[in-house]
Amino acid sequence: MSVQKPSIPRGTRDFGPAVVARRNYIFGVIRRVFEKFGYAPLETPTLENLSVLTGKYGDEGDQLLFKVLNSGDFAKDVTADDLGADNRSKRLLPKVAEKGLRYDLTVPFARYVVMNRGTLTFPFKRYQIQPVWRADRPQRGRYREFYQCDADVVGTDSLLCEAEIVLMMSEVLTTLGLTDHTIKINHRRVLGAFYQALGGEGTETDLFVAIDKLDKIGREGVEKELAERNFSATAIERLFDLLGVEGSFEEKLERLLAGFVTAGVAPDNATADGYKGLQDLKRVLDYLRGFGFEKWDNLEFDVTLARGLSYYTGCIFEIKINNVNMGSVSGGGRYDNLTGAFGLPGVSGVGFSFGVDRLYDCLEELQLFPEAVATTTRCLLTNFDADSETAVLPVLRALREAGVASELFPEAGKLGKQFKYADAKGIPYVLIQGPEERAAGLFKLKTLASGEERTVSLADVLAELAQ
Amino acid sequence: MSVQKPSIPRGTRDFGPAVVARRNYIFGVIRRVFEKFGYAPLETPTLENLSVLTGKYGDEGDQLLFKVLNSGDFAKDVTADDLGADNRSKRLLPKVAEKGLRYDLTVPFARYVVMNRGTLTFPFKRYQIQPVWRADRPQRGRYREFYQCDADVVGTDSLLCEAEIVLMMSEVLTTLGLTDHTIKINHRRVLGAFYQALGGEGTETDLFVAIDKLDKIGREGVEKELAERNFSATAIERLFDLLGVEGSFEEKLERLLAGFVTAGVAPDNATADGYKGLQDLKRVLDYLRGFGFEKWDNLEFDVTLARGLSYYTGCIFEIKINNVNMGSVSGGGRYDNLTGAFGLPGVSGVGFSFGVDRLYDCLEELQLFPEAVATTTRCLLTNFDADSETAVLPVLRALREAGVASELFPEAGKLGKQFKYADAKGIPYVLIQGPEERAAGLFKLKTLASGEERTVSLADVLAELAQ
Repeated sequence: MSVQKPSIPRGTRDFGPAVVARRNYIFGVIRRVFEKFGYAPLETPTLENLSVLTGKYGDEGDQLLFKVLNSGDFAKDVTADDLGADNRSKRLLPKVAEKGLRYDLTVPFARYVVMNRGTLTFPFKRYQIQPVWRADRPQRGRYREFYQCDADVVGTDSLLCEAEIVLMMSEVLTTLGLTDHTIKINHRRVLGAFYQALGGEGTETDLFVAIDKLDKIGREGVEKELAERNFSATAIERLFDLLGVEGSFEEKLERLLAGFVTAGVAPDNATADGYKGLQDLKRVLDYLRGFGFEKWDNLEFDVTLARGLSYYTGCIFEIKINNVNMGSVSGGGRYDNLTGAFGLPGVSGVGFSFGVDRLYDCLEELQLFPEAVATTTRCLLTNFDADSETAVLPVLRALREAGVASELFPEAGKLGKQFKYADAKGIPYVLIQGPEERAAGLFKLKTLASGEERTVSLADVLAELAQ
Repeated sequence: MSVQKPSIPRGTRDFGPAVVARRNYIFGVIRRVFEKFGYAPLETPTLENLSVLTGKYGDEGDQLLFKVLNSGDFAKDVTADDLGADNRSKRLLPKVAEKGLRYDLTVPFARYVVMNRGTLTFPFKRYQIQPVWRADRPQRGRYREFYQCDADVVGTDSLLCEAEIVLMMSEVLTTLGLTDHTIKINHRRVLGAFYQALGGEGTETDLFVAIDKLDKIGREGVEKELAERNFSATAIERLFDLLGVEGSFEEKLERLLAGFVTAGVAPDNATADGYKGLQDLKRVLDYLRGFGFEKWDNLEFDVTLARGLSYYTGCIFEIKINNVNMGSVSGGGRYDNLTGAFGLPGVSGVGFSFGVDRLYDCLEELQLFPEAVATTTRCLLTNFDADSETAVLPVLRALREAGVASELFPEAGKLGKQFKYADAKGIPYVLIQGPEERAAGLFKLKTLASGEERTVSLADVLAELAQ
């Protein structure tokens, strides 16, 4: 037999009903918060031109782009010459593929802003909840197709936006029940001031990359790495003095400023990097106070936060769920040249992103999904025989008109099978009308979780099941 | 300058905030109806193995599949020999691509059912709202990426499902305000009986294809086509007698049965094709009566409905919006062997699908989108200066806590610019607190549509804006 056993590509997933419902719950919470803060939805195509995508994510990113074969006779321009050389895939690529799958939501957003700059009103606040694709090696918790939930505002450098990002992060996590979290905030210019304070040894990139690894390789590891990259012992010592600054958000701001002054990199001068960074953070703090923000224990000025090699230029953010062993569930920051690659320089923006898969895993591990999320059908009407089937049709209609998701088992037959169906589908209520109940115009309503069964009228059923 | 002007691939679209909101409104109506009828959500990956997709949509479908290049050194197995022959793309394809983009929601659903048959409880009712991709030539109203909204139930042949499809179609259209619609229903076996009544001339496929064109080419065109395909004048005459049957749903059932008896293809015998088809339709009619269905004027037993060459075997459906010049916005039917290609024969199912782009165009043409759908932000707080900005932060918080999507213009400055922003974004209310109002603890609330401006307290604002 040539019948195949079907499968799905590695790193992709089917989401069955229960999982979709839980994922939609998370999306719904995020979406409502984004909208409450004035962010409006944007959706961009799955397919983007490779000319838009290539070169935006570094060499590694280019490798991880999924490329789509041109339609029709895609190989018509390929010649034997193309196959002779090394690196034939690189030579063939531009001849056979001009489109790729969306790799993140940021580059398509920038592309959209540039293409629509004439009609958009700035500041432009958009959110975007869509899947992205990366040809990464699949492993536990890393998929080739996964959703991102981004919110960005471009066209203003007001630090109100940064403060509201903290509020949005806080509200999403609190609403989801993830109360034991830390929202970390830092500023790229503070890191820049560190570099200046070290005397400009090595390169700034090496410094950021090393700091970024502090969590993983510890102080000794970072010291070793910096030494190998030509940072002096004095510089490294000074770095850890600065990184070790302690106290409340405000105390850290003050102590770092003093440290910068000592290091000669932050005279009381608004153009100095470190001073500007600290001033920005102070302003964010003031906004949060103005909002009456209360969750100060969940907000940390983390001077070791670096966010890798990304394109951020101002405040940077990251969220850690403390009672789950898991990487950050959200991150973001301010950037100054998002649209430059598409010919529109000088557009400042700030944004952040939630990773839904990680949030999902946190909620599952902490058992935080509300029970009501798990199912769609609320009531199953049993099907005794042709007569009973006909008799309950108006009941089924009444339940649905009352907004109660309901179904009638489509075939008459053994009740055991029908209860098993309700159980497997997580349907909480089963409504039974046998010949006796029908004669009396009543029903048996069974609550599956408790096994409780009561004889009730249609009005009772509607009152109990309508939510 | 090497800066490129960005673009998106032909046949794809960006959806800006207003359009996303309107599309989500349609998706929401459809989703709520599906769920109310006990259908649970399923999501399958964008990428499917080409082994799953290929051969399921006919030769033309295989051509229209978007194929994704293998990651890494995709061309490593390509040889010069592959380029020598004609049809090199066909020879290269299996060497460079093993995945493709989802082409519809039906085949992935069948694949999912087969892969999970051990754990699924049948009947399995699922809905699926996801985009699909087809490398079709883009033209007005035809896109390369578009959404389908499918609901299917497999594992039962109960005609309750068909009746509920009519109810769901009716409820979705009525909820959207598309009241001037016709839900057409027919049965493949009725068409089969036509073929038998014609004496088995030509082929069944030729007959269905010709009938399917009746709308476009008219009776004469169909007659000509059938004659060319070896149907006799007598047979064609008999066909149009049957196609011409008139009356109510029930009258048509009776008259067709009489016609089949005359033609000798429907003795009162449940195994005869035509009789079975008419019996099924009668049962659907009885279910609808049992439900108290009232919209009989919107339901038509259309004996000319053929649904092309599709895999349907029982009832078939199609919806036409009568007051808009547009093809069908929904269609579906029963099939008997959806999962056969994946090694699971004999699974009967029935399903249907809404085309969101066409529904969108209908709603737009008839101006049926509710106004409230168009925007997300409900209230803009103006930003006078640093003091006023700080003063309204608690107000902004109070609005959001009351569930009112609100934003503060992020920069102090000219009110004109801020009003323009509200206007462009479709924000209905602007809340102003200048120094005078602040001193009095009051606000000016301006309704942009009417231009009306009132002095109000925070409590007034909350009462008016909370929904």
